[in-house]
Amino acid sequence: VPKVTPEHRDARRRQILDGARRAFGRFGYEAATVPRLEEETGLSRGAIFSYYPSKLDLFLALAEEDQARLLEVWIEGGFDALVREVVARPEWIGVYLDVPRMLRADPALRDRWRAFNPLGQERLASRIEALRSAGEIRSDVGLETIGKFLGAVYDGICVHLGAGFDVDVDGTLELVRAALAPPAVR
Amino acid sequence: VPKVTPEHRDARRRQILDGARRAFGRFGYEAATVPRLEEETGLSRGAIFSYYPSKLDLFLALAEEDQARLLEVWIEGGFDALVREVVARPEWIGVYLDVPRMLRADPALRDRWRAFNPLGQERLASRIEALRSAGEIRSDVGLETIGKFLGAVYDGICVHLGAGFDVDVDGTLELVRAALAPPAVR
Repeated sequence: VPKVTPEHRDARRRQILDGARRAFGRFGYEAATVPRLEEETGLSRGAIFSYYPSKLDLFLALAEEDQARLLEVWIEGGFDALVREVVARPEWIGVYLDVPRMLRADPALRDRWRAFNPLGQERLASRIEALRSAGEIRSDVGLETIGKFLGAVYDGICVHLGAGFDVDVDGTLELVRAALAPPAVR
Repeated sequence: VPKVTPEHRDARRRQILDGARRAFGRFGYEAATVPRLEEETGLSRGAIFSYYPSKLDLFLALAEEDQARLLEVWIEGGFDALVREVVARPEWIGVYLDVPRMLRADPALRDRWRAFNPLGQERLASRIEALRSAGEIRSDVGLETIGKFLGAVYDGICVHLGAGFDVDVDGTLELVRAALAPPAVR
């Protein structure tokens, strides 16, 4: 048996994730069959499933990785930076077009999806709280309301990008800023 | 050959549309196979496809019907009424969860989708223009920007409803109002 180093395992994992992203983005979750995953990753099903127990786990590993990265962009650069990040890579969004249907059909998956990265979510909430305390965004509506509003705008933008429609980034962000501005400075 | 009255044809068309809505909502566009459409409509494929030349045409007939109704709600009752209308019937949205992927894969369909109901779209634009002239919404950002912003919020809400997440209707609508309020009255 050849020795498998941690570096080798990391490289293989990367190869699987990158190939799977291409397959999911091109065909959608359902139609990204195991033969297509094999073709895009250049690896056998045996190799793929020795790293991820199922297609769903592989998909969720991609989603968790993306969500961690995007939360970081949001926390560091604000909502504007988040939107600009997804607009800069519209091909990436194809991977997620099947998610609403998947979540609709599977309440357990919905709970799992919502519970991704609790630490990042907490850090984001603290960041928004800090902006409220500093008077940069309004404090007369709840934090959860702000989160749901921004989530709707973000997901709407992702749907438009995914479907191939143009997005008015600057105009939309200007209206989002007006929505969240404290009454005093509006 | 029995005589087929216009009333009979209308009733059959309704039966087909209602059954197809159930099938698309339950299984998604791709998985709503012809046998499933036959089962939900209670009609043979021959009968179904004598009214609609293809599954896509049947789906688009539903979409066009819905869009006409929702545009009417928007024009008559404003964006609040539109959102409350979709929130009141979350099961309806299931029919549309596959649309972004369908549009992504087919630019011709995207153009067709965008060109639905030009008269209704014009009436909506006039309505928003009238609100701007009356000073009820801001006139310092373009009409198209307002349309894209509201479209993103609306589609984001639809995705959340479709996926089975809660939507904060009142809070979201309050923030939308703040986004569109003229600077003077904010």
